[in-house]
Amino acid sequence: MPRFFIENEDFDGKIAVIRGEDAFHVARALRLAVGDEITVCTKAGDSFAAKLTYIRDEEVKAEVLFALPTTESPLDITLFMGYPKGDKLETVVQKAVELGVRFVVPFISSRCVKRPDEKGEKKSRERLCRIADEASKQCGRCRLSEVSPIVSFDDVIVTAKNFDLPLFCYEGEGCSSLPAVLAAHPQAKSVAVIVGSEGGFSPEEAKAAVAAGFLPVNLGPRILRCETAPSYILSALSYHYELQK
Amino acid sequence: MPRFFIENEDFDGKIAVIRGEDAFHVARALRLAVGDEITVCTKAGDSFAAKLTYIRDEEVKAEVLFALPTTESPLDITLFMGYPKGDKLETVVQKAVELGVRFVVPFISSRCVKRPDEKGEKKSRERLCRIADEASKQCGRCRLSEVSPIVSFDDVIVTAKNFDLPLFCYEGEGCSSLPAVLAAHPQAKSVAVIVGSEGGFSPEEAKAAVAAGFLPVNLGPRILRCETAPSYILSALSYHYELQK
Repeated sequence: MPRFFIENEDFDGKIAVIRGEDAFHVARALRLAVGDEITVCTKAGDSFAAKLTYIRDEEVKAEVLFALPTTESPLDITLFMGYPKGDKLETVVQKAVELGVRFVVPFISSRCVKRPDEKGEKKSRERLCRIADEASKQCGRCRLSEVSPIVSFDDVIVTAKNFDLPLFCYEGEGCSSLPAVLAAHPQAKSVAVIVGSEGGFSPEEAKAAVAAGFLPVNLGPRILRCETAPSYILSALSYHYELQK
Repeated sequence: MPRFFIENEDFDGKIAVIRGEDAFHVARALRLAVGDEITVCTKAGDSFAAKLTYIRDEEVKAEVLFALPTTESPLDITLFMGYPKGDKLETVVQKAVELGVRFVVPFISSRCVKRPDEKGEKKSRERLCRIADEASKQCGRCRLSEVSPIVSFDDVIVTAKNFDLPLFCYEGEGCSSLPAVLAAHPQAKSVAVIVGSEGGFSPEEAKAAVAAGFLPVNLGPRILRCETAPSYILSALSYHYELQK
């Protein structure tokens, strides 16, 4: 069923109103008719089967039939991702959305090679947000993921206290075992994951992240590419917290 | 340290002999000198630090200094992958190698859209093998992974009895929980993972796989792209069996 993400003010618990491009999409591209079923997803992350009751190019209404089981992770995951080379961030965003992430926050650290200029950054972010939206629809998320503007590494590490489980993926010394750390946080809800760009982190940055409260964890003996590491840890988080035991 | 994979007959336990292109690479591209250190990986999956003792364009010798900790998965993993569209198989192979796979076996099932002709297949396999070799070196594997020729789905499912843990990734009814299945196989060594192409499997194929002995497992509530699913399950296998608890 086609999937629509709607604003709070457009849903009273019974009737969902779809506006703008999405309404046009229902009426013209999908050529749906009154009585056809769609999936409606709310800002709160709930989703419902709904039946179309009114269709115009600029506004569509649907009546809720029943609630659908959630496809959202039980965790609220923020991926802090070191700004990588080329178009790798696009792959990272797409995969992260499929794997249940809520926010992707790109950051610049000392070993990042590329930092787009202001204009390039705006354009890149628009593209990333579009990729996130498309991935959310394609993989059946109940909630849209968000891609934030680029921040600094210092901005990232000060957020540690906002999360039940702030993780720092690191290849150096002093890392804890990921399964042990997850097992020690059975009630975690908000999780942060920091993954570096190609060059990883300087020892000073690693020290600062740990001092700020991030828990350094190792992702195994092989050197994962910077676009593989987020998939690894997000899959591990889903495996550990989301799949039924 | 540069990494070289050597044949059994070129290693007597003390001296490793590097030949052909690799020897030329040592002598000319890397411009290494006698006394420089390299990493030598054997067919058995062991790896050693070694010191160069003899360098010619066509032959290089290195004396073993000490054994290095393994970077190989404790599992022997075969990924059976439904032949996907475009160049997705390249991404799948690269990521699977990083995540510890030993064999990638592409297969054709009823919902695969593309099957290359004989010439195309040969060329594609050469390219995939090269990608696997490069990924093995890049992520620090001790062993090269292999990509097999394309087989049929029937060829795949008859192999179930060859594996301690034959897994079938499926979105349909009747799947077991992956954590429960892995927990029930603490001693598994050889693991097979079947992942479908974009179209997934017909109910008949799913039934046949299960009847043949494959265990159907679900990878969570979201619909993963066919190139994301292998990363998910290979990461989960690494998390469960490879990372220290």
